[in-house]
Amino acid sequence: MIPNHPTAPSFPPSGPFPVGTERDHPVSHGIKALLSPAVSPAAERLRYILGEDDELPNPTLFTEMDTLQHDGDEMEWKESARWIKFEEKVEEGGERWSKPHVSTLSLHSLFELRTCLQTGTVLLDLDGYSLPQIIEDVIEKQIEDGLLKPELREKLSYVLLRKHRHQTKKPIHRSLADIGKSVSSNTGESSGSSRRLVSRSMNDISDTPSTDQLKNKFIKKIPKDAEASNVLVGEVEFLEKPFVAFVRLLQATMLGGVTEVPVPTRFLFILLGPAGKAKSYNEIGRAIATLMVDDLFSDVAYKARDREDLIAGIDEFLDEVIVLPPGEWDPNIRIEPPKKVPSAEKRKSVFSLNEVGQMNGAAGGAGAGGGGGGPRWCLPRFCGGLYLDIKRKLPWFPSDFYEGFHIQSISAILFIYLGCITNAITFGGLLGDATDNYQGVMESFLGTAMAGSMFCLFAGQPLIILSSTGPILIFEKLLFDFSKGNGIDYMEFRLWIGLHSALQCLILVATDASFIIKYITRFTEEGFSTLISFIFIYDAIKKMIGAFKYYPINSDFKPDYVTMYKCECIAPDPGEPSTQRIPDTSAIPRRAPTRCESQRLALDWTQLSKKECLKYGGSLVGKSCKFVPDLALMSFILFFGTYSMTLTLKKFKFSRYFPTKLRKLISDFSIFMSILMFVGLDVLFGLNTPKLQVPTDFKPTRVDRGWFVFPFGKNPWWVYLASALPALLVTILIFMDQQITAVIVNRKEHKLRKAAGYHLDLFWVGILMAVCSFMGLPWYVAATVISIAHIDSLKMETETSAPGEQPQFLGVREQRVTGIIVFVLTGISVFLAPILKYIPMPVLYGVFLYMGVASLNGIQFWDRCKLFLMPAKHQPDYVFLRHVPLRRIHLFTLVQIVCLAVLWILKSTVAAIIFPVMILALILVRRLLDFVFSQHDLAWIDNIIPEKEKKKEDDKKKKKKGNKGDSSSDEEFPPPSVIKIPMEPLPAQPRNGGPHCLSRK
Amino acid sequence: MIPNHPTAPSFPPSGPFPVGTERDHPVSHGIKALLSPAVSPAAERLRYILGEDDELPNPTLFTEMDTLQHDGDEMEWKESARWIKFEEKVEEGGERWSKPHVSTLSLHSLFELRTCLQTGTVLLDLDGYSLPQIIEDVIEKQIEDGLLKPELREKLSYVLLRKHRHQTKKPIHRSLADIGKSVSSNTGESSGSSRRLVSRSMNDISDTPSTDQLKNKFIKKIPKDAEASNVLVGEVEFLEKPFVAFVRLLQATMLGGVTEVPVPTRFLFILLGPAGKAKSYNEIGRAIATLMVDDLFSDVAYKARDREDLIAGIDEFLDEVIVLPPGEWDPNIRIEPPKKVPSAEKRKSVFSLNEVGQMNGAAGGAGAGGGGGGPRWCLPRFCGGLYLDIKRKLPWFPSDFYEGFHIQSISAILFIYLGCITNAITFGGLLGDATDNYQGVMESFLGTAMAGSMFCLFAGQPLIILSSTGPILIFEKLLFDFSKGNGIDYMEFRLWIGLHSALQCLILVATDASFIIKYITRFTEEGFSTLISFIFIYDAIKKMIGAFKYYPINSDFKPDYVTMYKCECIAPDPGEPSTQRIPDTSAIPRRAPTRCESQRLALDWTQLSKKECLKYGGSLVGKSCKFVPDLALMSFILFFGTYSMTLTLKKFKFSRYFPTKLRKLISDFSIFMSILMFVGLDVLFGLNTPKLQVPTDFKPTRVDRGWFVFPFGKNPWWVYLASALPALLVTILIFMDQQITAVIVNRKEHKLRKAAGYHLDLFWVGILMAVCSFMGLPWYVAATVISIAHIDSLKMETETSAPGEQPQFLGVREQRVTGIIVFVLTGISVFLAPILKYIPMPVLYGVFLYMGVASLNGIQFWDRCKLFLMPAKHQPDYVFLRHVPLRRIHLFTLVQIVCLAVLWILKSTVAAIIFPVMILALILVRRLLDFVFSQHDLAWIDNIIPEKEKKKEDDKKKKKKGNKGDSSSDEEFPPPSVIKIPMEPLPAQPRNGGPHCLSRK
Repeated sequence: MIPNHPTAPSFPPSGPFPVGTERDHPVSHGIKALLSPAVSPAAERLRYILGEDDELPNPTLFTEMDTLQHDGDEMEWKESARWIKFEEKVEEGGERWSKPHVSTLSLHSLFELRTCLQTGTVLLDLDGYSLPQIIEDVIEKQIEDGLLKPELREKLSYVLLRKHRHQTKKPIHRSLADIGKSVSSNTGESSGSSRRLVSRSMNDISDTPSTDQLKNKFIKKIPKDAEASNVLVGEVEFLEKPFVAFVRLLQATMLGGVTEVPVPTRFLFILLGPAGKAKSYNEIGRAIATLMVDDLFSDVAYKARDREDLIAGIDEFLDEVIVLPPGEWDPNIRIEPPKKVPSAEKRKSVFSLNEVGQMNGAAGGAGAGGGGGGPRWCLPRFCGGLYLDIKRKLPWFPSDFYEGFHIQSISAILFIYLGCITNAITFGGLLGDATDNYQGVMESFLGTAMAGSMFCLFAGQPLIILSSTGPILIFEKLLFDFSKGNGIDYMEFRLWIGLHSALQCLILVATDASFIIKYITRFTEEGFSTLISFIFIYDAIKKMIGAFKYYPINSDFKPDYVTMYKCECIAPDPGEPSTQRIPDTSAIPRRAPTRCESQRLALDWTQLSKKECLKYGGSLVGKSCKFVPDLALMSFILFFGTYSMTLTLKKFKFSRYFPTKLRKLISDFSIFMSILMFVGLDVLFGLNTPKLQVPTDFKPTRVDRGWFVFPFGKNPWWVYLASALPALLVTILIFMDQQITAVIVNRKEHKLRKAAGYHLDLFWVGILMAVCSFMGLPWYVAATVISIAHIDSLKMETETSAPGEQPQFLGVREQRVTGIIVFVLTGISVFLAPILKYIPMPVLYGVFLYMGVASLNGIQFWDRCKLFLMPAKHQPDYVFLRHVPLRRIHLFTLVQIVCLAVLWILKSTVAAIIFPVMILALILVRRLLDFVFSQHDLAWIDNIIPEKEKKKEDDKKKKKKGNKGDSSSDEEFPPPSVIKIPMEPLPAQPRNGGPHCLSRK
Repeated sequence: MIPNHPTAPSFPPSGPFPVGTERDHPVSHGIKALLSPAVSPAAERLRYILGEDDELPNPTLFTEMDTLQHDGDEMEWKESARWIKFEEKVEEGGERWSKPHVSTLSLHSLFELRTCLQTGTVLLDLDGYSLPQIIEDVIEKQIEDGLLKPELREKLSYVLLRKHRHQTKKPIHRSLADIGKSVSSNTGESSGSSRRLVSRSMNDISDTPSTDQLKNKFIKKIPKDAEASNVLVGEVEFLEKPFVAFVRLLQATMLGGVTEVPVPTRFLFILLGPAGKAKSYNEIGRAIATLMVDDLFSDVAYKARDREDLIAGIDEFLDEVIVLPPGEWDPNIRIEPPKKVPSAEKRKSVFSLNEVGQMNGAAGGAGAGGGGGGPRWCLPRFCGGLYLDIKRKLPWFPSDFYEGFHIQSISAILFIYLGCITNAITFGGLLGDATDNYQGVMESFLGTAMAGSMFCLFAGQPLIILSSTGPILIFEKLLFDFSKGNGIDYMEFRLWIGLHSALQCLILVATDASFIIKYITRFTEEGFSTLISFIFIYDAIKKMIGAFKYYPINSDFKPDYVTMYKCECIAPDPGEPSTQRIPDTSAIPRRAPTRCESQRLALDWTQLSKKECLKYGGSLVGKSCKFVPDLALMSFILFFGTYSMTLTLKKFKFSRYFPTKLRKLISDFSIFMSILMFVGLDVLFGLNTPKLQVPTDFKPTRVDRGWFVFPFGKNPWWVYLASALPALLVTILIFMDQQITAVIVNRKEHKLRKAAGYHLDLFWVGILMAVCSFMGLPWYVAATVISIAHIDSLKMETETSAPGEQPQFLGVREQRVTGIIVFVLTGISVFLAPILKYIPMPVLYGVFLYMGVASLNGIQFWDRCKLFLMPAKHQPDYVFLRHVPLRRIHLFTLVQIVCLAVLWILKSTVAAIIFPVMILALILVRRLLDFVFSQHDLAWIDNIIPEKEKKKEDDKKKKKKGNKGDSSSDEEFPPPSVIKIPMEPLPAQPRNGGPHCLSRK
C-alpha cells in the first residue's frame, strides 16, 4: 500500500500524457483537436526548463547498469550493460561485450518506468559524497514518506553496498592461462568459489578507484568531462513492494568501485523489487539507462526541478519514439547503429526560443570566419579574381605546410608518386614517338617535376596534380607532322604557340573569365571525368593486349616436338651477288664497302642476336622466330594480379579481420603493397618482362637540342604571329581541362576548408606553359584521375568515439607537402633508376586500370548507367530515384551516353584537336536539356549537392511540410544546379551573390 | 462537438490501456502489481474471441492506402502505399514503388488511431455489394449518430466516389515512348491536363475491374484467397471535424476500381478531415494499414464483435510493439525486412486455450504421417535396422523418381558429373600408377558408373555420391607393393580381401552396428570434413604447382637472343662404337640388330621428336630442351580463372543486376559456365595444355587381365583366410568414411523429409565391394565433398511471396534421378571423349579448388578458426559466442586444429593405412573433452542443432524465462550433443527414444 498516494496506481490521471492533452486543455471541436500537434503541457514544461540559454552544455553521460546477482547467501552487483550512446550488453554466458546496438525497448517497460518515477523517491541535487551516505539519505527519505518499513533499513543498505563486479576485457594470453586453472572445474559453477572469500562487512565498496578501474582502457572511449549515471536493479526476498529511487547529486562524485571506469557519478537509479520479476526490473533498468543517454532527456534530467519535469521528459521521449510493429520485426534482432542519427540540436531546437535565427546561422556558416557583409561589385575588375584568390589563400599558406606532416601523407605520396612516374614515362614515351624524340622521357620527367612542384607550391588548389594529357599529346603529334611537312622548325614554332597560349591564359585570368565554369554542371563534369576514366581503362587494356602482339605466343607448340623449333640467323648467300648484294651495298655507306664486306664475311652468324642478324642483313629462319614464350602470359598475370590485388586490399578495410588500425593501414597502402607483391613475383620468376626504364643521364633525349629554345632565327617572321591561331585551340584545351578538373576537385562533398583558387590555378598553368615552351618541355595541365586519387588518399575521418557511432568524413588534408614531395621525388627518380628498373610495366598498367575503375566509383552518371541493368525493385535507394521518374532518369543518362560516345569517336580520330571545343559543346547540350527536362527533375539529377546533404535537406523539408500540413511536394526542389565560384574573399558565401559579383570590405 | 460522447475526447478513461490495468482491476499492493504481467482486460477480451478454435484460418489481407489528391477543383484518390506483409510506398516524384520495408510508425499516430476508432463509426458485418451503397450506409449511420451534419451528405459521397488512380508499373519501352509526348511539357505540371477530362458524374468508379487491374502482375504476389482492406485518407475543405469510419463487410466484395488488383474488399477504413493536417491523416492511415496486415490484429478484425474488441486489438498490438529511442535512430531510414519475423502462431498461442498441447505437437511432427506408439524393443534385432530402413524408404521410392524432373536437376547433374568424371580420371590415373595399371582409368570409369548408379538406385540415401577416396588409394598402393614383394598374385589377393571386407560390412549391417555414429558429434564430423576439404584444396594446388615442374619456364630467355635457343637431336656418334654403341645395341632386341642399325643410320635425326630421339639413343642438345614455353602460365591462368570465375558467378545471386530468376540461373550454372568460358579461352589460344583424356576403347587397361577375377588358383590356400586381417582395416576405413559422410549429408539443417538409411547404405557398399572385387574394379565409398556439393545444388527455397519476405530454405530435392543420370553419363563418357578432350585439366583442378573451398563454408569449425583473427568487437553474432566464453571456444578450436594436424601428418606418411583407426581416435578425443569442458559449453559448441534453430530456441527460452521471471540462464542449455539415428519406421521420432530403440507397430 502506498498510503500517501491513494489514487496513484493507475498512471494516466496523475500525469499529462502526450496524446491525452484534452484533459488539461478543454477543446471545442472534439476529434480535430486530437489530431492537431498542439503543444502538450509536457512540451510546455520542457520549453520552460530547456528554453533558458545555458552558457555550458551538459556533460556527456556514461550509463552503467548493474544487476544484483545471488550466489547462495552471497550477493554482488554485476555489470550487465552500458551505454555511451548505444547499448552494449554483457553476454551472459559469453562473458564478453556484445556489439553496440540500438536499444530496443518495450513500450510496457517505458510505462512502468514512468509509474516508478511517479511513485518512487526522487531526490534532486542531493549533496552526497559517498555511496553509503547517499544510500542512507535515500532510505531515510523513503521511510519518511512511508514507502518503506523502517525495519528493512539495515537489510536494504546491506544489499545496496555489495561489491560491484565489472565486465573487463582480459587480454587473450591471460585468458588462455586461466584455462589451465579452470580445467579441473568443468561443471560451470566454479566461478562462485572465489567469491565466497569476499568479506561480509556492511560495505564492500572502496572509496578509491581500484586498479581494474584505472587500467580499464574503455575510458578512452568516454569524453573527458563525462559524468556517470548508475542504474542498479535487482530482486530481493525481503521486499514486498519495489524500492525505487532516482537521485541526482549536487556534485558529480567518484563513488569508489561502482562504475567500471573512474568517472564521477551524477545520477543514481535504484530499483529493488520482490523476487520473481527480474526480467521486468531489467527492462525498466534498460529503459531508464536509454533515457539517460538520450540527448534531450539527459538535459531534462540535469535541469529538472521536480518529479513532474522528469515525467514530462519521459512523455516527450515517448512522443518521439519510433514504433516497429511486432509482426514485422523480431525484438531479438540487435539493430546495428545507423550511419546517421537525428542531431540533438534539431530535437532540442523545438524547445528553444530563438530557434529560427539559429537555424539560419547554421545553414550559412559552413566554412571558417565571420563577417562578409559590405558593398558588392557586380562587374569583373581587372585581375580581381586573381587578387582575391591570393588574398584568400595567403593566410592558409603556413598551415599548408605544417598540416602535411602526417602518416597518411606517406601513403598518399607513394601512391601519387607511382601514378605520376608511370604517367611521365608513358606520355614521355608516346611524345618521344610522336615528335621524333624532340620531347622524350627525360623531358617528360624534368617537366613533370618542375611544373608539378611549382604548381603545388604556389597554385590556388595544391591538391591538383599536373600531368601531360591525351589531347595535348595529340596536338603535339599533329603540330610536329605539320612542321615537318611545311619545313617549319618545330621547336621554335612550338615555343611561339606556347607563348601566345600562355598570354591568352593570362588574359583569361585577368578578365575573370573563369566564371564560365558556372555552366559546368554535373552533366558536363561527370561526362568529362567518365571519359577520362574510360581512357585510363582503355589504355591500360590496350597496352596489355599490345603485350600479346609484342610477345606472340606460339600456340602450335607441341612439347614433344621441341626439336622442331629453332630460329637461326642465315647469312645472306654470298654466291648470288647479282641479285642479293646490290641493295645491301647501296644501303651501307659507300665509304667503307670493303671493310664492311669483310666484316660481314668474318661474322659467326649463328652467334648473332636477332637484332644484329637483321642489322647485318641476315635472315631469320625457323619456327620459333616469330614467337616469344611466356612473356605475354606473365605480363597478363602481373597486370591482372596487381589490379585485383589492389581492389581486394582496398576492400580489406571493411572485413572483420584484424584490428581496425591495421586494416586501415593495409587499405591505405594497398597499391604500394600490390606493386611490391607483384614485383616480387616477377623477380621470383626472373622472366624478362618489360620493365620501367628511367633515363639515367641528365641530358636532352635528342643530342641536337639543348635545354633552351631560342625564339628567333629559324622560322619566317609571320610564323611568330600566325602561331596565335593554333595557340587559341591550345588555350581552350588547357582552360577546359584545367577548370573541369578543378571543379571536380573543389566539389562540395570534399568539404574543403581552404576554398578554391580557379584564377590563381590558371595563372600558374599559363606561367608554367611559357617556361616549358622556352625549355622545350611538354605542357602541363590538371590530370583528373590522379587528382581525384590524390584527394581520396588524403581523406580524413573522425576517430570513432562512442562505440557504435559511425566515423564522420571530416574533409581532406589540404596541404602542399604531398604534392611537392611527389614531384621532387619524380625529379630525382632519374637517380632511383637502379630500384625502379625492377618494376615491370604490366604492374603499372594494372595500377592504371585500378585508378580508372576506382575513379568511376562515386560518379553519379555511372550509378545511373548501372540502373539500366537493375530491375526497379532491386535499385538502391538513391534520393533522385525517389523524386524523378525512372524513365526521365534513363533518358538523361542516354543523352549523356550518346554525348560520351561522340566524344570518344572524336578523340580517336584526327578531329581530336577540336576535342576541347567539343567539351564546350557539352555545355551547350546541357543547356538544351533545359527544354526537355523540367527544372525539378534537373535539380535532382544534375545539381552538385552531394547525395547525403540532399537527403538531409529532403528530410528537413519533409519535417517542415509535416508541420505545415502540406502534402504536395512536387513544387519544392533543391536550388538550381549552378556551381558557385567563390569570388569573394571568404569561403562563407551568401546565397544570393552572383558568380561574378565581388564583395569588398 | 460529439453530442453523444460528451466525455469521450480524452482517450484513456474510456478504454482499458494495457498498462493502466489497475483501474479495472483494483489491486492490493500498488506498484508491484504494475510490474506484473497480469492478464490485462484487453488480453482477456482477445482470448475470448481468438480462443475459439476455428476450422479455417482467416484469409491473408492485402491493404492498399489511397490518398485524396486535389488538382484545382478536381479530386482523385491516388494510391500512396500498399502492404502484404511489409510496406511499399509510392515515391512521390519517382512514380515508382519503394522497396518493401518495415513500417515505422509514431506512437502518436497509433494513439490517434485508437481515438478515431473510439469516436468514429464502426460498422461490422455490413451487407454491402457496391461502393456507393456502402458509402451511403456509412454516411447514414454518421448522421444518425449525430456525427455528421446532414447537409454534407452529398459532398461527402461525391468525394468518396472519386476515381482511384493506382501506381502501376509501366514496361520500360512504353515509358520511353511516353518521353516523346511529354518533351514539350517541361514544367512538371502537365500531368493534370489529361485528368481534367475526367467526368464530373457522382460516381467515377466502375463496377467491373478495369484492364489495368486485370493486367497488373502484382496479383501474383498476393495469395489466391486473399481479401483486400482499403484505407482512404484525405483532407477536404468542407468538413469541420474528421469523418472516420471502419467498415467490415459481411462478404468480401469486388468494389470496382478501388483496389489496384482484382481482389475482393473486406475492410474499409475512411478518414476524411478538415484541411491542413494531411500529414497526420496519412500517418493514421499508415497505422491502421499496418495493423490490418498484422497477423494478430487481422484476426481480431475478422472476429471483432464490437468497437471495444478492435480497441483491445490495438492495445494488445501496442503492448507488443518494439520501441526505438529517438536519439538512436533516424525515423527516415527505411528498415529492410528482417530475415525472420516472430511467427504468428507463437503470438496467437498466448490467446489459445489448448496452447501447450499444440506446441508439443508442432515440435514433434516435422515429418509426415501420424501414429508411432506401441511397444519398444531396446535390443538390436538381427537385420532390424536394415529391415526398418527398407520399410521406411520403400514408400518414397516412386517419388524418388518423379520428383527428380526439375530444371534444377540439370545444373546439379552437370556439376556433379564434372566432379565425378574428374575424380574418376584423377583417381584412375593415380591407381594406374600405384598398381602398374592393374586398375587404370578405364576400370575407374566403369567402376564409378556401376557402383554409383547401383547405389543411387537402391541405397538408403541416394544423395550420397560414391567415389574412390584417398585412404583407399593408399591402401591399394601398399597392397600392390606387398604382393609384388612377396610373390602373391595381387588381383586374387585383393579379391579375397574385398570379399572378407564385404562380409564384415554385412555383419555390421546385420548387427545394427551403425549405432556407433551416435558418438560422431560435430567435433568429429567437422574435423573429418575439414580434412577432406583441405585434401581437395591441397591436391588442386599441388597439381597446379606440378604443372610448373612439368612445363618448366625458361626464365633466362631474352627475346632478342631467340637465335641462341634451340634443341637439336644429335645422333649418337658413329665414330666411337666401342664406348657408345654397346649399351645401345644391348638395349635393342637382339633379333634384328642389323635392321635396327641400318634404320638408325638412315634416320634424319633432325626430324625426330623429343621422344623418338631419346628412344633411338640420340641426345638432346640446346638451351631450350629443358623448357616448355607458355603452358605452365596458361595452366595457371585457366586454373585460377576457373576458380575465381566460379566464385564470382556463385556470388552473383546476391548482386542487384538482372532479374532474380536470371541471377539464380547464373548462380546455379556457375561451375558449368566457368568451365565453358575457360575451355573457350583455351581453345582460343590453342595452346597444347594438358587435356582430359578419356579412354575410348572398352577394354581393361592392362591386356593381361580380363573383366573377371577368378578366386582360386594363383595363391596358396592360407592367403584366402589370412586376407581377413587386412580386410578388417579396409572395413573400418569404409565404415568410418561412409558413415561420417552419411551423418553430414543427413544433418538436420538439410531438412530431409525422407530420412536416412545408414544400414541400407552400408549394405549396398558391402555388396558393391564384393562385385567390384570380382570384376577387379576399385572399391567405392561415399565422397564427402562431392556429396555436399550434390546437396547444395539441390536445395529448394520458397518463391518469395510477400514483397520483402525472405525466401525460406525448404529442404533438398531428394530423389534418385540426378545421381543415376550422373553415373550413367560417367559410364557413357567413354563415348563422349571427342567432346571431353577439349577440357583442359587445369580447369578441372580449378573446379576441385572451388569444391574444397566451398565445402569449408558452413563448417562451424572453420568459422571458429576465423575468430582467431578477429578482434572480439568485430566478431559476428554467433549464438555460441553469446553463451560460451571466447577463451573456451578458442581452446576447443585449438584442440581440433591439433587433431587435424596429427591426422594430416598421418595421412601424408605410410601410417596412412591406420587413418580410419585415427578417426576412431578422434571420437575418443572428443569423449575426453567431456572432462575439460562443461556440458553447457559443449552443448553450445559441439551439438548439431543448426545455428538458426538454436537461436530460436534461445529466444523461446528467454521468453519463458521472462514469464517465469527467472534471471539466471547458465543452467539452461540445449539438449546434449548426440546424433539420433532414426531407427524407428517413422521420421517423427520421440525425444526419449534411445538411438538403438526400435518402435514396433
